[in-house]
Amino acid sequence: MRIFKEAKAEAASVAGTAAPKAVKMYTRLDVAEHDSIEKRVWCSYKENVYDVTDFLDNHPGGRDLLLLAAGKDIEPFWRLYQAHVNSDVAMEMLKTLKIGELDLEKEPKVDVDETDPYKNDPERHPALKCHSAKPANMEPPLSLLRREYLTPSSLWFVRNHSPVPIIDAATHEITIVSGEQSQDNLNLLRTKAVINLEHLKKDFEKKTVVATVQCGGNRRGGLDLIKKSSGTGWGEGAISTAKFAGASLRDVLEVHAGINLHNYERLGIKHVIFYGADDMRASIPIEKALSPFGDVLFAYEMNDCEELPRDHGYPLRVIVPGHVGVRNVKWLSKIKLCSEEADGPWNRGIAYKGFGPSYSSVEGLNIDSVPTMQEMPIQSDVAEAENISLSLATTSKNDDGEKRTVVQTSAKGFAWSGGGRAIIRVDVSANKGLSWQTATLKEGSDQPLSKAWAWTFWEIDDLEIDASKLKPGDEIKVLVKAVDASYNAQPEGAAAIWNLRGLNNNNWHAFTVKVEE
Amino acid sequence: MRIFKEAKAEAASVAGTAAPKAVKMYTRLDVAEHDSIEKRVWCSYKENVYDVTDFLDNHPGGRDLLLLAAGKDIEPFWRLYQAHVNSDVAMEMLKTLKIGELDLEKEPKVDVDETDPYKNDPERHPALKCHSAKPANMEPPLSLLRREYLTPSSLWFVRNHSPVPIIDAATHEITIVSGEQSQDNLNLLRTKAVINLEHLKKDFEKKTVVATVQCGGNRRGGLDLIKKSSGTGWGEGAISTAKFAGASLRDVLEVHAGINLHNYERLGIKHVIFYGADDMRASIPIEKALSPFGDVLFAYEMNDCEELPRDHGYPLRVIVPGHVGVRNVKWLSKIKLCSEEADGPWNRGIAYKGFGPSYSSVEGLNIDSVPTMQEMPIQSDVAEAENISLSLATTSKNDDGEKRTVVQTSAKGFAWSGGGRAIIRVDVSANKGLSWQTATLKEGSDQPLSKAWAWTFWEIDDLEIDASKLKPGDEIKVLVKAVDASYNAQPEGAAAIWNLRGLNNNNWHAFTVKVEE
Repeated sequence: MRIFKEAKAEAASVAGTAAPKAVKMYTRLDVAEHDSIEKRVWCSYKENVYDVTDFLDNHPGGRDLLLLAAGKDIEPFWRLYQAHVNSDVAMEMLKTLKIGELDLEKEPKVDVDETDPYKNDPERHPALKCHSAKPANMEPPLSLLRREYLTPSSLWFVRNHSPVPIIDAATHEITIVSGEQSQDNLNLLRTKAVINLEHLKKDFEKKTVVATVQCGGNRRGGLDLIKKSSGTGWGEGAISTAKFAGASLRDVLEVHAGINLHNYERLGIKHVIFYGADDMRASIPIEKALSPFGDVLFAYEMNDCEELPRDHGYPLRVIVPGHVGVRNVKWLSKIKLCSEEADGPWNRGIAYKGFGPSYSSVEGLNIDSVPTMQEMPIQSDVAEAENISLSLATTSKNDDGEKRTVVQTSAKGFAWSGGGRAIIRVDVSANKGLSWQTATLKEGSDQPLSKAWAWTFWEIDDLEIDASKLKPGDEIKVLVKAVDASYNAQPEGAAAIWNLRGLNNNNWHAFTVKVEE
Repeated sequence: MRIFKEAKAEAASVAGTAAPKAVKMYTRLDVAEHDSIEKRVWCSYKENVYDVTDFLDNHPGGRDLLLLAAGKDIEPFWRLYQAHVNSDVAMEMLKTLKIGELDLEKEPKVDVDETDPYKNDPERHPALKCHSAKPANMEPPLSLLRREYLTPSSLWFVRNHSPVPIIDAATHEITIVSGEQSQDNLNLLRTKAVINLEHLKKDFEKKTVVATVQCGGNRRGGLDLIKKSSGTGWGEGAISTAKFAGASLRDVLEVHAGINLHNYERLGIKHVIFYGADDMRASIPIEKALSPFGDVLFAYEMNDCEELPRDHGYPLRVIVPGHVGVRNVKWLSKIKLCSEEADGPWNRGIAYKGFGPSYSSVEGLNIDSVPTMQEMPIQSDVAEAENISLSLATTSKNDDGEKRTVVQTSAKGFAWSGGGRAIIRVDVSANKGLSWQTATLKEGSDQPLSKAWAWTFWEIDDLEIDASKLKPGDEIKVLVKAVDASYNAQPEGAAAIWNLRGLNNNNWHAFTVKVEE
């Protein structure tokens, strides 16, 4: 995996001007080895090397955030948070921590393997945890996900199946065809429709959707603790949120294919299949595509940036709000209107089908008997929670007049449900679910109840814990579960929802905090 | 509660012709006292009294079904199952069991209290369990619910708030008005629209919807075992399914109010409020009302019968498929298009709002912070399961070559989810959830994945149980949990979903079976 290296030349030697002339020289490997407090925490910025260990507790964004850059170049992290570059303060602080410089001549030359199909993949943010580099399967840490409502594009989870296609947006064409399933359908499109990006931008109203996209295998790692399932062992980070802009699929189908709510049934159309330039294909039901409340988008912008990042579908992807990630086909090249769902693993295979928890092999399974995933179930996560300080414990009386020693902690997270079902309540517990406190819903809580395509942030400041039996060094689990507008609840444990493909893990999420003096 | 008594005169003396001339005479009270096997099981039919105890095990429909009529008049039960009246077989069997006749002169005269507002309530089926007679809150037993896909209208759960209104269908009018919430809205309807049943039947296409309707408090009794919540302690029977026919709300709003998908937002309409002649009122979001996939109906027929039963809204009710029972307003008298949801307990009060499990009083609750119920979550029930016969145990080897003594049982039930989300899988366990077997989906499993308004029946014939430690007299719980098309799962226990109002209990359902020799 290559990392960001877009340093602007004029900024290259700003840092470190106060350092002595005879500087100690290090390689990037030396820096990489210093990636923990025990080994001292080093970072590089431009050609300078810093020891930030003693600064950790003074970092305005918190020590955990700075630790994400331990052993790494700090620039991609600074780029996420404008505070670092909007003033000289961060640079001034950093200067004092300089311990040397990078010996760029000693950098090992990376030979590009010209036969590597992945050689043109884009650089990725160093904060992403890499499950697989080829193809890219990477996820951001939970703590970064909860910092901004719209996930910075560079922090979005990446779930590719192949090398990232190289597409020339100026000449890229998207064809719309119809399947040959029935007599009526044969002449559905007199001529094959061909559209390009210019058409989409000029001929259609630019619509905006803020949507959370989650991989079907998000939190698979939690299922794997019960029993190994098949697929990438994602943590909780295979979920991200962005503001997408583009043309409405509904509008495009009407204008370029003449398909609408009034004729689709007569024409026998039941599915819309999307094809990616990476040979991926996945379909959604036509009702989602044509619904006036479906909001399916051909997206060409992400987070107000005029282009999609290459990892996220440049130049055009589908956004199917409320549906599992795989339906949001990237690098869109073809659309097919069909009486059947897409063939291949992503619809008809087992990749997105959930079987009962006692079936641990495909043997004897009737794969056709279970429909593939489209909408996803209710989900929630604790992204941050504060360690517990026993020194802050207070004594109070409960309803029965008994004395209790209690301490409070705070926690933050997000919750989301598929199908546009808004999050209406988030419950948090620090005593294994014996009692629950309701969190405050924050950003995202004002979305329409049936079109809440994006997650809802939550926080709680006064989560109460019985401190009478706690001692320093103990660990406490902060649990979360959410309720959506259809009053769906999350299951308690992972065992009863375990499934062969490790899909849809949405049991109560736990975040461990430490008990301190 | 009065019971059915529509005996046809010509059939009155068919039964009992083989009995001796000097017959023993009993009162209905005598019959009612014989309502268990210990006390002998008696039933009456017309003026005859029968002891059916020795016939229980020979009853073609099973002993449990016949036991439902213990101590009661058998006619309303026979009327449910045409087999009894389609041939003479049932009557011939019954004759042999006659033990006497009803002394109708000794029947206590029931004085009608003319001041009782409930005096005109309709008769109800004796199989219904009565939680409250005034107003009627009654539910059928689970075993009857699973016998026919369309619940016979007389067995439908009844959840009334007041006496059943007396309405003359010929003169009954339904007004459509708009609220006075905004300037735009003021002149929404130039004149108040008034429609009647004749309009609805003649001017609009008759549409049919098979829908399951479930009370928000169904299975509240299960929550009350954790801690008493407020409201009727329903068992699992506050759920029923019927085929409804009527006019589409969407069509009526277009024709009589000029409201459609293209103008509702501009007009500021957000909710449709339904008013019942019983002073009930409840609203649904306008998007559900106008959606081409919403299927909201003004229903005037139920189960192919030309009239709705009085208990179920005669002459007109709303059917809001996929939404909680209370939105399906009965005895419809007025519709209001509004920018706000209905005032009163059923939308804005706590009656249909779910708070966290640790809030056991309304004190300090921000009622407005939680949206009222519309769509319901995934639900499933075991309606029948066979007792376990140890004599049928067999020995087999498991995957590790260990010997196991196993026995099989069978079970049947139903599953349903709100919002039209189809049931895609049902898991059954007889070992506390340690392992699960997938049931076979039966009637209802062919519904569209996103418009499955009615329940899905399921059954399993080979549910395996480790018999090595079982002994006669033991009890085993057969557990069920279902998965809907959005892959929502049911929570394991009731404690974490307990709520003040006892709503939405959908934890794993358990059915107890006995272990026999």
